[in-house]
Amino acid sequence: MKNVIVGQSGGPTAVINASLYGVIREALKSEEVGHVYGMINGIEGFLQDKYMDLGEELSEGELELLKLTPAAYLGSCRYKLPEDLSAVFYQTIFEKLNDLNIGYFFYIGGNDSMDTVSKLSRCAQENGSDIRFIGIPKTIDNDLILTDHTPGYGSAAKYVASTVREIVLDASVYQQKAVTIVELMGRHAGWLTAASALARKFPGDNPMLIYLPESNFELADFAKDLEKALEKRNSVIVCVSEGISDASGTFICEYGDEAMVDNFGHKMLTGCGKVLENFVRRQLGIKVRSVELNVSQRCSGIGSSLTDIEEASRAGSEGVKVALAGETGVMVAFKRTGDDPYQMECAIEDVNKICNQEKPVPAEWIVNGNDVSEEFLTYARPLIQGEPVRPMKDGLPEYLHRR
Amino acid sequence: MKNVIVGQSGGPTAVINASLYGVIREALKSEEVGHVYGMINGIEGFLQDKYMDLGEELSEGELELLKLTPAAYLGSCRYKLPEDLSAVFYQTIFEKLNDLNIGYFFYIGGNDSMDTVSKLSRCAQENGSDIRFIGIPKTIDNDLILTDHTPGYGSAAKYVASTVREIVLDASVYQQKAVTIVELMGRHAGWLTAASALARKFPGDNPMLIYLPESNFELADFAKDLEKALEKRNSVIVCVSEGISDASGTFICEYGDEAMVDNFGHKMLTGCGKVLENFVRRQLGIKVRSVELNVSQRCSGIGSSLTDIEEASRAGSEGVKVALAGETGVMVAFKRTGDDPYQMECAIEDVNKICNQEKPVPAEWIVNGNDVSEEFLTYARPLIQGEPVRPMKDGLPEYLHRR
Repeated sequence: MKNVIVGQSGGPTAVINASLYGVIREALKSEEVGHVYGMINGIEGFLQDKYMDLGEELSEGELELLKLTPAAYLGSCRYKLPEDLSAVFYQTIFEKLNDLNIGYFFYIGGNDSMDTVSKLSRCAQENGSDIRFIGIPKTIDNDLILTDHTPGYGSAAKYVASTVREIVLDASVYQQKAVTIVELMGRHAGWLTAASALARKFPGDNPMLIYLPESNFELADFAKDLEKALEKRNSVIVCVSEGISDASGTFICEYGDEAMVDNFGHKMLTGCGKVLENFVRRQLGIKVRSVELNVSQRCSGIGSSLTDIEEASRAGSEGVKVALAGETGVMVAFKRTGDDPYQMECAIEDVNKICNQEKPVPAEWIVNGNDVSEEFLTYARPLIQGEPVRPMKDGLPEYLHRR
Repeated sequence: MKNVIVGQSGGPTAVINASLYGVIREALKSEEVGHVYGMINGIEGFLQDKYMDLGEELSEGELELLKLTPAAYLGSCRYKLPEDLSAVFYQTIFEKLNDLNIGYFFYIGGNDSMDTVSKLSRCAQENGSDIRFIGIPKTIDNDLILTDHTPGYGSAAKYVASTVREIVLDASVYQQKAVTIVELMGRHAGWLTAASALARKFPGDNPMLIYLPESNFELADFAKDLEKALEKRNSVIVCVSEGISDASGTFICEYGDEAMVDNFGHKMLTGCGKVLENFVRRQLGIKVRSVELNVSQRCSGIGSSLTDIEEASRAGSEGVKVALAGETGVMVAFKRTGDDPYQMECAIEDVNKICNQEKPVPAEWIVNGNDVSEEFLTYARPLIQGEPVRPMKDGLPEYLHRR
């Protein structure tokens, strides 16, 4: 009998805890599994011997609440493992795993987390360790390859679509011509910004203009698009990805402010909405405001998708199943087997092929550089369906927090 | 038999349409009322002969959907009526009202809208018109005097509390010391920012620091507060009103005017959240980000309060009742008659006493200039209770929009 350890890594999502729930539930069911440990703050915290016994410490009620709690219950980290698999780091980690009698290691995360799973599984192979390493996908960005979509995207997309629909109503109350720029998350991939198209209530409705980082963004074209849109409607809502850039590769947000770099070398982008707001005010002389939806896109539980929650949980339990069946160095993936009605099956893919890759919105789903196609809507719509029954207390959603 | 006309004015809220619903329902019930007209874009649109027949044009199903639709179905305006009651403006308005055989005029709005009701009712009195003018309160700012609270505040407060609770979870996932600054609406009154205290799940929980415009804000004190908070907790969430100012009366958001210039040399207009973010990064060297909750505070239907929706509707129907009973120049007000259990009754107040006044958060409810008291929480908690059953379509809330 071996023990399980599970960790969460990278940015929070509305459903990363549903995947944790799936891992715990499935692992506790198995007679081959003893304890189910959780790393506190991912691999970084585990290096500092921070972990908890999830099977022992969580009550039945807390476990159910965990499934509906956004963010990352175990805490997270952004920790890049050494490239050199003979580094002392790996020796330390494997000693700690062996001390806890770990047989199965699950890491819930995005690109960078799959890089962690890849390195650990390759290191195990080289050193004859039989610990199995499994990746459970998670990212609101929906940019992992070899999977139809990722857990976390559906809820973020639903939050974006419903919030943009409300902003459209809010922006339409006055008679005066006005532009509202909504800045959405997405450094390289426009999946989340594309989801704003779901907000439309009828053909031609706002958001009238949608710009993804997959297309070059030029201020002159933007001005022309905007003038054309303002001929049709007094209130124009524009949705832009934070990561839009021009043909020279310069980010629009860099037009206005400095860019910072996180410890993975990623640029921390904020502010293209503000840059465009300024541009419209000064160059076009139209009433304008910008709205940055910010972190609520990834952590809002109020408007999360039941489909996403259930799929995230299923990805977690599927990970345990394939680990018990002998797999290692793989990520759980989603295969769409039907669109009407929507059907999805789990599969596994080689994690080494996935890490450090990015899946953009296909060029054929982008229309005129300022909209998305019906094909995208058909793809995205099933992912935002259904609402969980959320426990409320004193008028607010009740969430599980680590004591 | 006379006709009713109703308009919406000022900024949208999640429940201003529930008040419109209340007016329509109550008016359609009465045998003394013929048509129920709605001004499109308030008094400004009515001057341009923009109105609709709400009783004729809205189906039963649409009327029920209206009750749960945020923003302002009829459109809104920000239009200040002339001070001189003999201005030709008033002659025009009264001619238009008489042409439509209006006997009852309802205006749903905040301070400025009550100014409109005040002027029109005084003008009617001076000119012997028997049209009755009634104000229905509405504002997320909760700053109208002579009423316990205003429709719109409960839903906005609930949105702020639940969103801040989620941001607190999101901000707590990493081990590193970090500050998150959440900027909330409220230029002069801190009611909405105070509601962020409802987000706490246990004593000492985040948001640890709350700053209202009612207290002077000094950067030096803020730095001290922050350092003290960071000794207790790695992740500190700070909630600030957009309108905080220092002892000299300078708004904190104005501190940034010179700092933020884009590459066109133009000033970037930013909120106090960005100014404080920059201050913390440069002066304290701590990881920091700022989040501006923006217009969703006033237009989010996802997390609205059922108590607020029902009270807003009741304010509308109460307005019709008192108009039919002969009142004019009054605003419907709320009187709290019990705290445990919460009980509320409608009353009327002289609109002339209300307009152009502002109700701040009482000084005794503000603690140390950086928190709010238990008395505030007892006051605010009943207003955020209950969730409406919201019709969903294709995974998103269905809202009524004017065709």
